[in-house]
Amino acid sequence: MRVSKILTTVAVIVLATSSLPTWAQPALVFQSDFGLEEPAVASMKGVAYGVSPELNIFDNTHEIPVFNIWEAAYRLNQVANYWPADTVFVSVVDPGVGTNRKSVVLKTRNGQLFVTPDNGSLTLVAESLGIDAVREIDESKNRLKGSERSHTFHGRDVYAYTGARLAAGAISFEEVGPLLKPEVVSISYQKPEMTDKGIIGSIPILDAHFGNVWTNISADLFDTLGVSVGETVQVRIREGDTVLFEQRVEFVSSFGGVALGEPAIYVNDILNIGLALNQGNFAEQYSIQPGGQRVIELHP
Amino acid sequence: MRVSKILTTVAVIVLATSSLPTWAQPALVFQSDFGLEEPAVASMKGVAYGVSPELNIFDNTHEIPVFNIWEAAYRLNQVANYWPADTVFVSVVDPGVGTNRKSVVLKTRNGQLFVTPDNGSLTLVAESLGIDAVREIDESKNRLKGSERSHTFHGRDVYAYTGARLAAGAISFEEVGPLLKPEVVSISYQKPEMTDKGIIGSIPILDAHFGNVWTNISADLFDTLGVSVGETVQVRIREGDTVLFEQRVEFVSSFGGVALGEPAIYVNDILNIGLALNQGNFAEQYSIQPGGQRVIELHP
Amino acid sequence: MRVSKILTTVAVIVLATSSLPTWAQPALVFQSDFGLEEPAVASMKGVAYGVSPELNIFDNTHEIPVFNIWEAAYRLNQVANYWPADTVFVSVVDPGVGTNRKSVVLKTRNGQLFVTPDNGSLTLVAESLGIDAVREIDESKNRLKGSERSHTFHGRDVYAYTGARLAAGAISFEEVGPLLKPEVVSISYQKPEMTDKGIIGSIPILDAHFGNVWTNISADLFDTLGVSVGETVQVRIREGDTVLFEQRVEFVSSFGGVALGEPAIYVNDILNIGLALNQGNFAEQYSIQPGGQRVIELHP
Repeated sequence: MRVSKILTTVAVIVLATSSLPTWAQPALVFQSDFGLEEPAVASMKGVAYGVSPELNIFDNTHEIPVFNIWEAAYRLNQVANYWPADTVFVSVVDPGVGTNRKSVVLKTRNGQLFVTPDNGSLTLVAESLGIDAVREIDESKNRLKGSERSHTFHGRDVYAYTGARLAAGAISFEEVGPLLKPEVVSISYQKPEMTDKGIIGSIPILDAHFGNVWTNISADLFDTLGVSVGETVQVRIREGDTVLFEQRVEFVSSFGGVALGEPAIYVNDILNIGLALNQGNFAEQYSIQPGGQRVIELHP
Repeated sequence: MRVSKILTTVAVIVLATSSLPTWAQPALVFQSDFGLEEPAVASMKGVAYGVSPELNIFDNTHEIPVFNIWEAAYRLNQVANYWPADTVFVSVVDPGVGTNRKSVVLKTRNGQLFVTPDNGSLTLVAESLGIDAVREIDESKNRLKGSERSHTFHGRDVYAYTGARLAAGAISFEEVGPLLKPEVVSISYQKPEMTDKGIIGSIPILDAHFGNVWTNISADLFDTLGVSVGETVQVRIREGDTVLFEQRVEFVSSFGGVALGEPAIYVNDILNIGLALNQGNFAEQYSIQPGGQRVIELHP
Repeated sequence: MRVSKILTTVAVIVLATSSLPTWAQPALVFQSDFGLEEPAVASMKGVAYGVSPELNIFDNTHEIPVFNIWEAAYRLNQVANYWPADTVFVSVVDPGVGTNRKSVVLKTRNGQLFVTPDNGSLTLVAESLGIDAVREIDESKNRLKGSERSHTFHGRDVYAYTGARLAAGAISFEEVGPLLKPEVVSISYQKPEMTDKGIIGSIPILDAHFGNVWTNISADLFDTLGVSVGETVQVRIREGDTVLFEQRVEFVSSFGGVALGEPAIYVNDILNIGLALNQGNFAEQYSIQPGGQRVIELHP
């Protein structure tokens, strides 16, 4: 027996016993509108753990308002860039469970996988990360054994199961099911644009915990206004013709840059423009709700 | 190539590829009525992590209403089947902490272990999974070192510690403590039964986040009524003589099978019969609270 | 040495070393005031996972009231002892984000690391565990690549990233940045003390979920009063001159020691004196808020 053969044998032993390094498995990240007061999320994780105990399982958020597909789309897009390129996301906001909405896996151009009903939840990651391919989940193969009788918890029986098998390498992306056209169901919303007076955008979400207002205007687009830190910009927020807020606001690099309770415009966590009151609640103070109907205008 | 060099090479291979049998350890699943607003759950996990950093630790739910033993029983039973047969559950809803209620580990017939005060929390898993054996925790051996002075947090000092040591293989089931009679403290509740008119059962829990009503009538028992998908069944929910809901309801395979806001009867996530309003809140609409006093009758 | 013996030796090496990787990495424990309704916590974990997928990541609590630095300090101190000596804590309650408050890593005498803004969050662990050394985070080296534009989420870009790199061994404590004086910003509060009449202390926190009142009077100090289990002690809680509660209360080893709804004084989870109503809510019943202004007096 030659040394090289010994080493080969050793390598086989190591590979057979050492179990795949934890790091070999991509992260599996769940989000849903299930809340944490009951164990729907736990049963999804139990199914995933049954697929492979070596999975690295995380939560995005499970406090998405019930059936709020827009927010599901937003929350996926908010974090995707902060996870590695092989991450598998499972998103279950599924008001149409059991109807003929398609169950799909989207592969984005950066290599991430998104397992979800194709109901609009993919609107924003498809736009920002780009579509590499979309496959429909073939439930005849990719469904938890013995779950056929329940039609109301595809999150557990189909999405968690399929996401776990993808992350664990038990199936490849190709084995998900048939290739669809490279497109997803999209929710329309007002995109940010330059006008002759300044920038118009919308308010897709609040940073509700702190009461900050987040716009869909990127820091890069804002830069074209030529406003420097310490200078002010005219901000108007309206719903139709009703003006909710109109004031010159200082552009700051941190909330500490303005007095307590004063408004500030800043670059938020995901490099879009946000509005805050220093240690206060901007959204509450000015009754701002998120959604495509609120328009924000920024004039130098 | 000398043997010592071969072994060095081997060691390098091992260190480069190995990373350990995470899979060798069963899942450790916690539930409690502690909530997440303070770190009681975290200190249980810290104790478990101190036992073995290789443990795979999960949460069922920590939002069980304070001291609600019935719901503790329900939440265990709801998910047990979705976790592998060697899973260790730690349940801490413990209004009698420090009194003479017994601290036990139940081994069910499928091999799962349940670490908990024996106060009724085991009612449903004992029934559905069957009792293999019950052991009392011998606190002289199975208690976090240095915790003797605190009498109010057995969840951390006894249950988390013992559960972690079981999951990590630091002790065997036999080392938990003395064997008790194969029985647990049980909460009585109205079981589902056939009558000459139809089926009677109760409403053990709500799917509160979505407002759906869950019964304890199994899909199999419901089948004996011979109602097919698309057909209707007469549903009456009462508390004593007060009727809360009475209507013919369509049996659907998914909520999309009825109009928005219409009631539907369906097979829920755990293969029992549930009632929902399509994208509405059935429990709120008809003031249904869970508990053994609410009776549900289904007539063909 | 025969080949079979070499392979046996190899197998021993594999078994001996192959459980290394996971336990080789200390736990990484996050706390914040972000809540769980949106994915700020998830993006911190994504960054940590990008540093090393083998990290063992846990949550202390993310429900600290917004900007409540005192409670951040309290929650760290509450659990530190229940985690191993090499644990890395990341605490992000950061009302001064972007101002010139320092970002630091505190190494306590037991070897634990605390990554946080130095804004008072370290008050209690510095006192109870002792300061070994404090280093300022050098953001030119210890900051997520590409995050320079965002100034409002140091939790993700600086603290999570630095904590993850410390836990993963990617940097040593020395590589955090320059050594500061061995001191931290401290919040003043009334410490427990013996008087000629008894003990005076304050109420740093509530066990809000159960409505229990926790004092900063240790069980050891209480022992000096010579009150045994089953005996009573005179308890007065006041805010300035306003008396909120005044009554003789039984010292119990468990809540079951008094009648339902009766007050009890006990040794709490962290070995301080607490006040509870057996299966009731003491704090609500007597309108007790936590904070240095409430004084509690215990007289034999």
